Amino acid sequence: MERLSRSGTQSDTDEVELGDHTATIHLDMTSGSGSSTDFNPFSGNKDDTAFDVNDAPTFFSKYGDFHTIDWQRDLARDRLRHKMIKHKKVDFPLGLLQSGWDAGAGWICVLFVGIAAGATAGIIDIGARWMSDLKTGICADRFWLDREHCCWSSNDTFFKDDDCKAWTKWPWMLNDYNSQSFAFFLVEWIFYIGWAVAMSTLAVLFVKIFAPYACGSGIPEIKCILSGFVIRGYLGKWTFIIKSVGLILSSASGLSLGKEGPMVHLACCIGNIFSYLFPKYGMNEAKKREILSASAAAGVSVAFGAPIGGVLFSLEEASYYFPLKTMWRSFFCALVAGIILRFVNPFGSDQTSLFHVDYMMKWTFIELVPFALLGLFGGILGSLFIFANIRWSKFRKNNKILGSNPIYEVMIITLITASTAFFNPFTRISAASMIQQLFDKCEGQVDDDVLCDSNRLFTLYGQLFWALLFKFIITIFTFGIKVPCGLFVPSIAMGAISGRLMGITVSQIFESVQATPGHSDYFTCQLGKDCVMPGLYAMVGAAAVLGGVTRMTVSLVVIMFELTGSLEFIVPTMVATMFSKWIGDGISKMGIYEAHIELNGYPFLDSKGEYPYSTVASQVMRPSINRQPPVDEMNVMSDFREMKNELSVITEDGMTLGDLESLLRQTDFNGFPVVISQNTMHLVGFVTRRDIFLALHTARKTQPYVVTNSTAYFSDNVPDSVPGGAAPLRLRKILDLAPMTVTDQTPMETVIDMFRKLGLRQVLVTRNGKVLGIITKKDILQFMRNENST
Amino acid sequence: MERLSRSGTQSDTDEVELGDHTATIHLDMTSGSGSSTDFNPFSGNKDDTAFDVNDAPTFFSKYGDFHTIDWQRDLARDRLRHKMIKHKKVDFPLGLLQSGWDAGAGWICVLFVGIAAGATAGIIDIGARWMSDLKTGICADRFWLDREHCCWSSNDTFFKDDDCKAWTKWPWMLNDYNSQSFAFFLVEWIFYIGWAVAMSTLAVLFVKIFAPYACGSGIPEIKCILSGFVIRGYLGKWTFIIKSVGLILSSASGLSLGKEGPMVHLACCIGNIFSYLFPKYGMNEAKKREILSASAAAGVSVAFGAPIGGVLFSLEEASYYFPLKTMWRSFFCALVAGIILRFVNPFGSDQTSLFHVDYMMKWTFIELVPFALLGLFGGILGSLFIFANIRWSKFRKNNKILGSNPIYEVMIITLITASTAFFNPFTRISAASMIQQLFDKCEGQVDDDVLCDSNRLFTLYGQLFWALLFKFIITIFTFGIKVPCGLFVPSIAMGAISGRLMGITVSQIFESVQATPGHSDYFTCQLGKDCVMPGLYAMVGAAAVLGGVTRMTVSLVVIMFELTGSLEFIVPTMVATMFSKWIGDGISKMGIYEAHIELNGYPFLDSKGEYPYSTVASQVMRPSINRQPPVDEMNVMSDFREMKNELSVITEDGMTLGDLESLLRQTDFNGFPVVISQNTMHLVGFVTRRDIFLALHTARKTQPYVVTNSTAYFSDNVPDSVPGGAAPLRLRKILDLAPMTVTDQTPMETVIDMFRKLGLRQVLVTRNGKVLGIITKKDILQFMRNENST
Repeated sequence: MERLSRSGTQSDTDEVELGDHTATIHLDMTSGSGSSTDFNPFSGNKDDTAFDVNDAPTFFSKYGDFHTIDWQRDLARDRLRHKMIKHKKVDFPLGLLQSGWDAGAGWICVLFVGIAAGATAGIIDIGARWMSDLKTGICADRFWLDREHCCWSSNDTFFKDDDCKAWTKWPWMLNDYNSQSFAFFLVEWIFYIGWAVAMSTLAVLFVKIFAPYACGSGIPEIKCILSGFVIRGYLGKWTFIIKSVGLILSSASGLSLGKEGPMVHLACCIGNIFSYLFPKYGMNEAKKREILSASAAAGVSVAFGAPIGGVLFSLEEASYYFPLKTMWRSFFCALVAGIILRFVNPFGSDQTSLFHVDYMMKWTFIELVPFALLGLFGGILGSLFIFANIRWSKFRKNNKILGSNPIYEVMIITLITASTAFFNPFTRISAASMIQQLFDKCEGQVDDDVLCDSNRLFTLYGQLFWALLFKFIITIFTFGIKVPCGLFVPSIAMGAISGRLMGITVSQIFESVQATPGHSDYFTCQLGKDCVMPGLYAMVGAAAVLGGVTRMTVSLVVIMFELTGSLEFIVPTMVATMFSKWIGDGISKMGIYEAHIELNGYPFLDSKGEYPYSTVASQVMRPSINRQPPVDEMNVMSDFREMKNELSVITEDGMTLGDLESLLRQTDFNGFPVVISQNTMHLVGFVTRRDIFLALHTARKTQPYVVTNSTAYFSDNVPDSVPGGAAPLRLRKILDLAPMTVTDQTPMETVIDMFRKLGLRQVLVTRNGKVLGIITKKDILQFMRNENST
Repeated sequence: MERLSRSGTQSDTDEVELGDHTATIHLDMTSGSGSSTDFNPFSGNKDDTAFDVNDAPTFFSKYGDFHTIDWQRDLARDRLRHKMIKHKKVDFPLGLLQSGWDAGAGWICVLFVGIAAGATAGIIDIGARWMSDLKTGICADRFWLDREHCCWSSNDTFFKDDDCKAWTKWPWMLNDYNSQSFAFFLVEWIFYIGWAVAMSTLAVLFVKIFAPYACGSGIPEIKCILSGFVIRGYLGKWTFIIKSVGLILSSASGLSLGKEGPMVHLACCIGNIFSYLFPKYGMNEAKKREILSASAAAGVSVAFGAPIGGVLFSLEEASYYFPLKTMWRSFFCALVAGIILRFVNPFGSDQTSLFHVDYMMKWTFIELVPFALLGLFGGILGSLFIFANIRWSKFRKNNKILGSNPIYEVMIITLITASTAFFNPFTRISAASMIQQLFDKCEGQVDDDVLCDSNRLFTLYGQLFWALLFKFIITIFTFGIKVPCGLFVPSIAMGAISGRLMGITVSQIFESVQATPGHSDYFTCQLGKDCVMPGLYAMVGAAAVLGGVTRMTVSLVVIMFELTGSLEFIVPTMVATMFSKWIGDGISKMGIYEAHIELNGYPFLDSKGEYPYSTVASQVMRPSINRQPPVDEMNVMSDFREMKNELSVITEDGMTLGDLESLLRQTDFNGFPVVISQNTMHLVGFVTRRDIFLALHTARKTQPYVVTNSTAYFSDNVPDSVPGGAAPLRLRKILDLAPMTVTDQTPMETVIDMFRKLGLRQVLVTRNGKVLGIITKKDILQFMRNENST
């Protein structure tokens, strides 16, 4: 809240002071920011830099960094462009070609994005796998192969837990250790840790030096960007390159993080880069967001192998402005990306889904009780995780030592993770392998597998419980460090462990009930075959915890369904997700991404919530009525006189060029209402600071008769200029004649609705046709936070 | 267009004269309308009926029949209710209980809806199957069994084309005919026709007598209702009962129609009926639409066995106001309905999906060319179908004989359908069985099956082509007759036939190429196994034609995917759907439902299109500027004086009760802007005709000092009443102080956007704080139609 309270602005300034955010990203990473402009949140007039450039470049850089776009204006611009092309259409053949190109541009663009996203994901998957396997050893014959392919190519019989001959473990490179000896174990451990620390250090260095925006999951920022926020360089090529490389490195380091969130960020980078090939999208921030929405869908599609889930994720979680045309295009993009990924075939199988399960899931109705319990557990665990992670992130921000030494932090976390994880069979392998194991059923050769050996039940309980605790604690500290790191896989891992634990327990209970004489009739199912499959519980648990952490609903269920390719499985997932969401929302309304958005103070207007406030527009607008001494209702008009002085307005005609210039100097508002006169305050239109500045600047330069005494006319009634006197300045063309207005008695819910649905930057508050004040997006956000906190 | 042009209204009257619609439904079915009020579209003051009722009932019947709801107002009402409950929450335990009930009401309601929809669908499926099989014969032992179950229960071996002993064909009941004889054939034919005509006549009689709204698909009307239109009785219990019975009858008659569209209508009826159990939804039209959206999803879910597709259908096609909370609830509702249907198990298998395919779909990249061709064909066929069907519907409307004899029409269509369909093996069986056959692969016993016998290729081509032509022509005449009839299954059938034709052709081409020496290397696939599976082509064709007819996109692909349960199949479907949509939109932008909406003149504001108009608000508002003689731009103010006289406004104070009453008498506008004075026209608020009338009526009745000379005050500055004189009338509390306004220069795209996204009924047009005119939803619709037609 304190972040938003600078200067009692009345204007359309809705950039937010990202002091805290920049403190994490810019201030502690000052060594160089290849992709982002140096943004000083405390300089009042950041627009000055834009004033000096001439028209063509300003067309591109229409919005400043950390500004919010004006959807209505951008869409209007696009419609204008569209009309122009339509007129040209008659010119054969060039106009027709251009019109055709224009119509197909969106599809071609998302096609490219899909192809690039699929290829990128494939390369990252292959790279991360190989580098991750290098922790334990190397392929003797062909060093470029990962463990699985190495063993395949060597035509060795390949066992699940043991390795083939071709895969040389590091200790063996040094000495001919006995693989059961302590020395072997120690050397292996040291190599394991050393590789992990090396990888993560490299990752954090890359990020620090080349692209500070490449760290983290990126989803909170993507949400803000899609809602109309501008963060320069966040989706740039450097971010893309460094995040790709960093993601491979950080995945290889064995940290408790996932590739899936960053994959969405990478796909959006690709979307942003390709959109510049198509001016229709590249030069229009609102239209660009259509491509970005599709890109986000493609990101989820390649991350999980779930095209439909991707579209729903983009719709439910990420996107803000989502016309149905975009949905269809997003689906196309997600599907192309999925096909390409399948073509690249990173997992060596023909499956694109991350955790493919090819057995039938059967369950009985009584099992819905443990599924619901798993949901409750997932909701609680998720909320606990969010709480702890946010507390730690706040501490990191405010702590000088921690905040300024991201490299040491990463190294320490990696050291702890690697050295501890090594001693548990479940945490030692990659999270994806562990999840796959937990999802699997118990059939075939179960003798080797601790998961299915009912004689070693206590060992299993111990190991799983330990793994869960470890994952939970280490992920709290990991999510937020300065390497590319996602949260999906760690959440799924936690959920899969808890689910498997629950599954084993339920299966034990069922078994003992079934063993009781006389009770066996209740069960027509065969344990492990028709009912109580611990693998199913693992999946349900995964959905529950993921739901608790992210608060996704439909898209989560669809993703889980596509992930495993089994329709039978929808009902248990749905039950768990519902309970998880209910209990989670009961504890705290915010998911992890919303919590991080709030932590960073991004101007994100959530499109989901319902806000039953009993406030009207006049109580929120600036200048505020509340600041005045309380007045009798009947004296509102006299009170209004006083207030009026606070609202900086421009009169339609009568103000001189000098007046305007001093107004610009004295205030830092980004826009001014234009009224007929100071007395009546009847609204004519709205003009932005930038437009006035540019107009005055140009006029001063090019028209010699325009002097300080020239009168500026926003109306059409411009008198003829007196020869020799000061020439009048016509400014009607920079006047926005269609500003959005509401009356002072409009309920805030309606105002918020207008902001959300129409994508406004500001709205003018009127009463009886007179301008009273202005409400900006920033005011809305501050109001909502105040309301929520009280 | 002419339908919308009555009286140059300025008001918020946005009911549309459904003259044409009522002509079809009411006028020709005057014998009795159990579920719908008698609506006379030509009576100007239909609100008068509402004025006499006192307050409590008007709370229910807040909107008149064929009126549009005001979303903002309804949602505000709900927020108020919510706040009251929140206040009560402290009262333990009653308040807490009430609060909990309120929070859970939505979920409980959709749970009920899901259960009821699933059960209804199951009963209808079973009933329709049984009645449909009665066309050919009866189960000798157990008459209540359909053919398949009859044969199962008799433990006979059951062949695909031949029947079991237990199933007694009608001719055998009469005589011991030889089943190959002509007499047998003739008797069978006569029974077939007779049963069909009897069923359809019963259906149309039921509809005509009990519930005229039960006819047709219902989806166009559902779309309008979800967009905020009120059609009394359209979702009532009578409509539900008659449509259920009629659907069984019309399905049994063998007409070329489907059960799927009506299933959506039935589910919405269920939603509407259950919503009255929960006043939160039943008494608030806007909130009720949340339940209806979920119901629509459940309808598709049970119709196709596709819960995710149902949600997407509701999102993409049906719904208008779709907050994300609704999406999650819709998913729940759709899933519950699906589970219940599975429990009822109408198809005797464990599959809920309509056309389950349990073989793997393999395809090669080169096959995307024929898939794209199928898409093109589907788009063209669909557009042709829409064109022809709309032309025929228009003809039916305007033709006296046809319009007033729906029963004869149905009988004739049934006669033609049944007598012709009997001679083709594909059209003789039910459309669902045919589609299932066409989707199937060629394996196993192919000797009997004409579909897979390559020796009888010409017969097959002939039969399929004939079936396609027959289906196409007869469906044009069938869709729109006065029985419950959907369009999905006929479209899928047409598509499946064309797809199968294409598949056979491609397979022949591939075979001949493969036979050519030297070319066999190109094909690594085995015909009918890995590539060129005619069943896959049938599915792709089905998607293409369905896409061409309905113009659905994402939801169609997902429905087709869930229908067949095969993910491999998404890419071909997607390609076909895309091409179908492109070519279809190229021919005509409207899908069949939009075309029927336009035909019936429903006030549906499409939420999908983009409208690049170059018009501003002042050109659309009423009173219209265009009616004035063209004036110089500089003289707008004097022009404005003239215009002002046309806009009926109420002044804040100064008008007497008599003035108001005569204003009400002289105009039939549904609302009036309240201004400070006629001179300044500065806007204060908005007041509806209904509210003024009620207020005046009550005042006259209860307050003796309120006389014709009493001054009405909409402001707070009410002078003390002079003893003995006329008492002032305080009307501020009926004044809406937050009317939506736009300036006269606002582009129409923005205005349309506001109407769509905020669910407005009217918007006031202002310039410099003065009211110029008003734009209603009706004006918007008329404007859009004019723009589109020019």
